Amino acid sequence: MIRLRRSPERIRVPRGFAFSALAAGLKASGRPDLALAEASEGASAAALFTLNRVVAAPLEVGRASLLATDGKVRALVVNSGNANCATGPRGRQVCERICREAGKLLGVNAAEIFPSSTGIIGVPLPADKIIRKLPELIKTRMPNQRGALAFAQAIMTTDTRAKIASARFGAGKKQITLLGIAKGSGMIHPKLATMLVYIFTDVGATPRELQRLLRDACDQSLNSMSVDGDTSTNDTVLLLASGQSGVSLRNTAARKKFAAALADVCQSLAEQIVTDGEGAEHVIRLFVEEAGSRDEALQVARAIAHSALVKTAWAGADPNWGRILAAVGASGIAVDPARIKIFIGRQMVCRKGVACPFDQARAHRELGQAVCDVRVQLGRGANAVRFLTTDLTAEYVRINADYST
Amino acid sequence: MIRLRRSPERIRVPRGFAFSALAAGLKASGRPDLALAEASEGASAAALFTLNRVVAAPLEVGRASLLATDGKVRALVVNSGNANCATGPRGRQVCERICREAGKLLGVNAAEIFPSSTGIIGVPLPADKIIRKLPELIKTRMPNQRGALAFAQAIMTTDTRAKIASARFGAGKKQITLLGIAKGSGMIHPKLATMLVYIFTDVGATPRELQRLLRDACDQSLNSMSVDGDTSTNDTVLLLASGQSGVSLRNTAARKKFAAALADVCQSLAEQIVTDGEGAEHVIRLFVEEAGSRDEALQVARAIAHSALVKTAWAGADPNWGRILAAVGASGIAVDPARIKIFIGRQMVCRKGVACPFDQARAHRELGQAVCDVRVQLGRGANAVRFLTTDLTAEYVRINADYST
Repeated sequence: MIRLRRSPERIRVPRGFAFSALAAGLKASGRPDLALAEASEGASAAALFTLNRVVAAPLEVGRASLLATDGKVRALVVNSGNANCATGPRGRQVCERICREAGKLLGVNAAEIFPSSTGIIGVPLPADKIIRKLPELIKTRMPNQRGALAFAQAIMTTDTRAKIASARFGAGKKQITLLGIAKGSGMIHPKLATMLVYIFTDVGATPRELQRLLRDACDQSLNSMSVDGDTSTNDTVLLLASGQSGVSLRNTAARKKFAAALADVCQSLAEQIVTDGEGAEHVIRLFVEEAGSRDEALQVARAIAHSALVKTAWAGADPNWGRILAAVGASGIAVDPARIKIFIGRQMVCRKGVACPFDQARAHRELGQAVCDVRVQLGRGANAVRFLTTDLTAEYVRINADYST
Repeated sequence: MIRLRRSPERIRVPRGFAFSALAAGLKASGRPDLALAEASEGASAAALFTLNRVVAAPLEVGRASLLATDGKVRALVVNSGNANCATGPRGRQVCERICREAGKLLGVNAAEIFPSSTGIIGVPLPADKIIRKLPELIKTRMPNQRGALAFAQAIMTTDTRAKIASARFGAGKKQITLLGIAKGSGMIHPKLATMLVYIFTDVGATPRELQRLLRDACDQSLNSMSVDGDTSTNDTVLLLASGQSGVSLRNTAARKKFAAALADVCQSLAEQIVTDGEGAEHVIRLFVEEAGSRDEALQVARAIAHSALVKTAWAGADPNWGRILAAVGASGIAVDPARIKIFIGRQMVCRKGVACPFDQARAHRELGQAVCDVRVQLGRGANAVRFLTTDLTAEYVRINADYST
């Protein structure tokens, strides 16, 4: 069993970026809710967005801006406390106004400002509160760990911990740094992207090069997890490259190391998001193996991770593999139960779709740990997926049943 | 708002059937767990089964028997406390043995005995406990309300109430009676059928006639509901017609009345199952309207009814329509948010995918009632579905997290 990364590791800040955050009065708690990340000389950008058909205003604006600038971003303005989603044409207008004002202050076109929002859906975004604070936000930016941590804290909503991952590697005599910052705790069932994730690096790269690397890294990590089966309207993953390391991705050795470092940063953020899942007490590393295709493995993994009965059994550390088998059977994949094997922790608990003898107390103990592996082998092929998910606890219900969100 | 039917109404028993139940020691509680329904002269049968790829042994045996006899059933033997699922070839063997023994006692072929099981998955069914009790079970059968009620109670698992519906109508000077008995409280997300539902009638009909009527009646009722999004491995709906009313479905007027009565019995059972959903405090009657097709409406309804965030908001009587909109957007249907309207109780809360003014306190009050209507209009066509579902409460988690099931 592998330890999942929970707390921010040592934060390394890539060259060419500065960060700031403050409280603009969007969160009732008065906590910081407005954050800035600025690339002093601009950055190449790649992005992934939610596949939800209901898409928040900042995603529509940000997607259009990336097209208009051909993947160039000068700064990122993020607010928490309000998702600016289901706010109609007016939602887009206020988002564009914020970008225009920030652009003016930084001396660039509005399209070079990438907007993000997270929080409640369906409530008009009070843009004036944000615009009023933009000068202070820009003035206080810092190109260091303190700035990055402030940024990470200001984008939190139901998160209980800031989510940061970083990596650094050498390329000749130079160094390339990656810094990933994420928020996310509920509404986690990403399809192609997840919640708000920003990755900053000083490698030199074109937007097209970044896009392919980002998709590959996310498919295995941020796109392979689920907390509650709900796909957000605001999921965004953004990768910004300042080029200020002096190393370009055209350097093949650097490119390989960069892809590995990017995958590692994404995986760490995915682990931090799931570990901080709303009400989660146990994290399950789900391995679906021997599938006919990767998509098939993913569909089975999502079906298991979306089953209320499986997730509540995990909450009780109950090695009830019958519920897992039923979820596999209902996944829509034409599985043959007689070929299915299920493992909980280190023990096989089901072979050929039928119970096999195992130590119940040990399985209960292993499921009761902070992290436990569950393995399902379908006997249909050679494809596999690793998927992170959580249990479903009474605390999750309490967090989300409050008449106030 | 329509009152849902909760408690068994007056029980009417169709001619030609007798019932019994007793405790065979399958339930740890010592409660009745073995039930018999016998058609003294045999009955025509129609059945629907789960679409889960993992199918319990009694469904495989029952399906084969109906094919072998061309839809003829003499008796139904049901046990609770053990699903006889994921029990492999041995599970089928013990099921066939039970049918053989019951057939011997009743003087018919094993294929005329229809078997059903419900309870834990993956544990071998102790057939001897059942076989030992068959003579007593057969000897004590009663052609009356008392027998039917005993049957309904013996097939319960996590159900807190027996689920019975009946109807009677006249055809000329004769009367036709329908009696429906169901169990189900969790693992309710039927696809084409649901849990254990048995409908007895004394109309005269061929298995083929019954099959079409049963499918139509179930599509609108037992196949349009969800408690927890988990599709069972044992879902079975069985319709048995003894013909002893002396009226046949070839009588067109009787056929129409019969279809209506059958739909009503199925709808009542669906309402009773959802109302008794595990941990459920509120029932939501979900209307998805203006869909491009009925399947599309059903897909959207299932996505809403499967959203943990929507269901926990309902648990708190929180009129958080943004979560409903997000679930619609993630349903896989290419909806245009700008055409979507959402109603909670009697008020419109979202128009063109955007908030519209409404009385929050009233919406909270209406959602807090035992039953509340939620209506989603997609603006894509003229098809609609009515779908029954429940909230997701901390009590649901408690019921299903116990290390003991």
